[in-house]
Amino acid sequence: MSSKFHQSALEYHQGERPGKIIVSSHKPLATCEDLSLAYTPGVAAPVREIAQDANKVYDFTIKRNLVAVISDGSAVLGLGNVGPLASKPVMEGKAVLFKYFADIDVFDIEIDTQDIDEFVQTVKNIAPTFGGINLEDISAPRCFEIEKRLIEMLDIPVFHDDQHGTAIIIAAGLLNSLEIQGKYIETAKLVCLGAGSAGVATLNLLCELGLSKDNILLVDREGVISQDMENVSQIKAQYSAKTDKKTLVDAMQGADVFIGVAAANLVSKQMIQSMADKPIVFALSNPDPEISPKDVNSVRDDLIMATGRSDYPNQVNNVLGFPFIFRGALDAKASEINSKMKIAAVHALKDLAKLEVPDSVLKAYAAKSMVFGKDYIIPKPFDPRLIGIVPKAVFDAAVSSGVSRL
Amino acid sequence: MSSKFHQSALEYHQGERPGKIIVSSHKPLATCEDLSLAYTPGVAAPVREIAQDANKVYDFTIKRNLVAVISDGSAVLGLGNVGPLASKPVMEGKAVLFKYFADIDVFDIEIDTQDIDEFVQTVKNIAPTFGGINLEDISAPRCFEIEKRLIEMLDIPVFHDDQHGTAIIIAAGLLNSLEIQGKYIETAKLVCLGAGSAGVATLNLLCELGLSKDNILLVDREGVISQDMENVSQIKAQYSAKTDKKTLVDAMQGADVFIGVAAANLVSKQMIQSMADKPIVFALSNPDPEISPKDVNSVRDDLIMATGRSDYPNQVNNVLGFPFIFRGALDAKASEINSKMKIAAVHALKDLAKLEVPDSVLKAYAAKSMVFGKDYIIPKPFDPRLIGIVPKAVFDAAVSSGVSRL
Repeated sequence: MSSKFHQSALEYHQGERPGKIIVSSHKPLATCEDLSLAYTPGVAAPVREIAQDANKVYDFTIKRNLVAVISDGSAVLGLGNVGPLASKPVMEGKAVLFKYFADIDVFDIEIDTQDIDEFVQTVKNIAPTFGGINLEDISAPRCFEIEKRLIEMLDIPVFHDDQHGTAIIIAAGLLNSLEIQGKYIETAKLVCLGAGSAGVATLNLLCELGLSKDNILLVDREGVISQDMENVSQIKAQYSAKTDKKTLVDAMQGADVFIGVAAANLVSKQMIQSMADKPIVFALSNPDPEISPKDVNSVRDDLIMATGRSDYPNQVNNVLGFPFIFRGALDAKASEINSKMKIAAVHALKDLAKLEVPDSVLKAYAAKSMVFGKDYIIPKPFDPRLIGIVPKAVFDAAVSSGVSRL
Repeated sequence: MSSKFHQSALEYHQGERPGKIIVSSHKPLATCEDLSLAYTPGVAAPVREIAQDANKVYDFTIKRNLVAVISDGSAVLGLGNVGPLASKPVMEGKAVLFKYFADIDVFDIEIDTQDIDEFVQTVKNIAPTFGGINLEDISAPRCFEIEKRLIEMLDIPVFHDDQHGTAIIIAAGLLNSLEIQGKYIETAKLVCLGAGSAGVATLNLLCELGLSKDNILLVDREGVISQDMENVSQIKAQYSAKTDKKTLVDAMQGADVFIGVAAANLVSKQMIQSMADKPIVFALSNPDPEISPKDVNSVRDDLIMATGRSDYPNQVNNVLGFPFIFRGALDAKASEINSKMKIAAVHALKDLAKLEVPDSVLKAYAAKSMVFGKDYIIPKPFDPRLIGIVPKAVFDAAVSSGVSRL
């Protein structure tokens, strides 16, 4: 980050009212009578209704449109375990994105414990407030157990965006990339570098979409996770391979797909050269990818590449997912965000990339053209069609899978 | 509540966006660059600053202006233990009042446990999010222990409004009433009917202001709390009297001051007649007072009366306190709301009632005149001078008592 940009970012967050969000009322408050409806004595009317029928909380309160963005600050951006206070600007930023892209109200909540039991209990206890819970920037493997337990306990959607949001965008881009390259998910050989929240969730979702476990090599700091290894966590062990391959170099030979959700500069040009014909390289580490598009392009031209950056083609950006997925779930008064809803989001995003791009999108990105193909495999965040398409797909999947309260 | 008013209140809370509050961004979001300042990569700048110096969270986030209104729904209005979901409209209503009167942002949080330990732990764990905590509608005696423990644990103000907010407004009105009646707090004989959160907190504050414990009779469902009684809770035992008086009838004889924070119609005309000369009657039960102004006025004309209702003179209304007290505390980045700050608020409110009332206030209340005296002992909620006077008094007290972070 340049020092000028750093300074601009600090100034953006400062001011007479520090931070980025405000809470206000959207109901009339012009007269004493208005206040007597908003508070005592009028407020007793909806209280009585909800006391008799809990579902009416969706008719009379902000719960209908309110998501909690919750973090313990244990894995914030690329900055690590900065704790709850320092995570607050990020969580407020997430609130801004929810509002901007899907008109969802968000309370950011920073939690002052990194004990799993206590974290789960705390979130469970504040859950009546919300229509959905977006877990954010919680370190692996803690995030897996936390999310699992909260999903079991609560009757509102609980969604760890670093897992499922990332997985959904990757899956949409990957399905399109496979199609362009003339490959099939059922037979593609895939290397995933990084066994944290994003890596594991992506493999889970891709397997639901047809990827074979036999074709997966999961690689972490220790190398290829194989069935010979000892002391592998239960989460990673799901993807232990029957293989002699030990290193990332070994794994990359002949691979059709590389997904990097690890750290900068871990992949060499030689590794890219050793991949199969027409490979797919998603190097998603931020801000610097596992290998730069420049290096990749210098060694072969038959591949499709995606990164996490906005200054290269094919940005894998979570903002394509979470606002619209929660919009659909809230509109359906859903009790969860299940597999069918996630897969509906994947297909909606995938299909949108194949439609003709309106001029407004070209203008927003100062682009002459955007045509489905190697340099345009997923929609752009500022595509105004997203809000019309993705929430509806998620909503319909919620209804058809029986988790809507409507 | 008339059925028409009930219906209006329900409609007020319904609509395309149910509830009363929204969250939005108040920073520029016109361009991609704006978003890159609000979220990644720019947001890393304030994260790094706060990670190095925790106090900077006040410079870069909404914490500076954010209060949590937190309830477990155990004692909501006069409706009792309706639980967290049904309490949500009330807590959102409180958020509206905080915003309307003092431009404070509020997240309402409804807590799904009535276990004291778990409640305290939950609030402690979400506290980094907020600049202050307003506890609301929590049943006594649980509220006393909850507040005490949270005040000890946390470095931000924790304030149970049903206790201290009520106590502050009562104290301001009572000091003025005593002055008008030519009495002194040091020698006034006081009966308090109701030993819940408001009653006990009011006695605590009045004792700090000079009331003698020897002159207090605290009365609850069991009658006068006296030193002869067994099984009196520690909270109430502070006000156990050396007395032979047993009943409210006994207690009222010769009393200078009656404070009712109990329930409707518990006080008779005869009791009022038996009070000392020039008595003061605060019958604050809502919506119906312990005795109606009509009944009181039918038996004597030398008294000052206050109620909790807006349709009689001298409304004791918490909205005169909490928005302005928190405004002062937040402006001072205070670590607590201590006695000195509460007493500063009492004096600010008391003194404001003695100033000439501006025409705008007369107009707002369709009143011909408002002059300090028996029918105007405390300011009116829509007095625009409150925001200029009360927060400054609280702020100054925070600074002089050493609890400001400025």
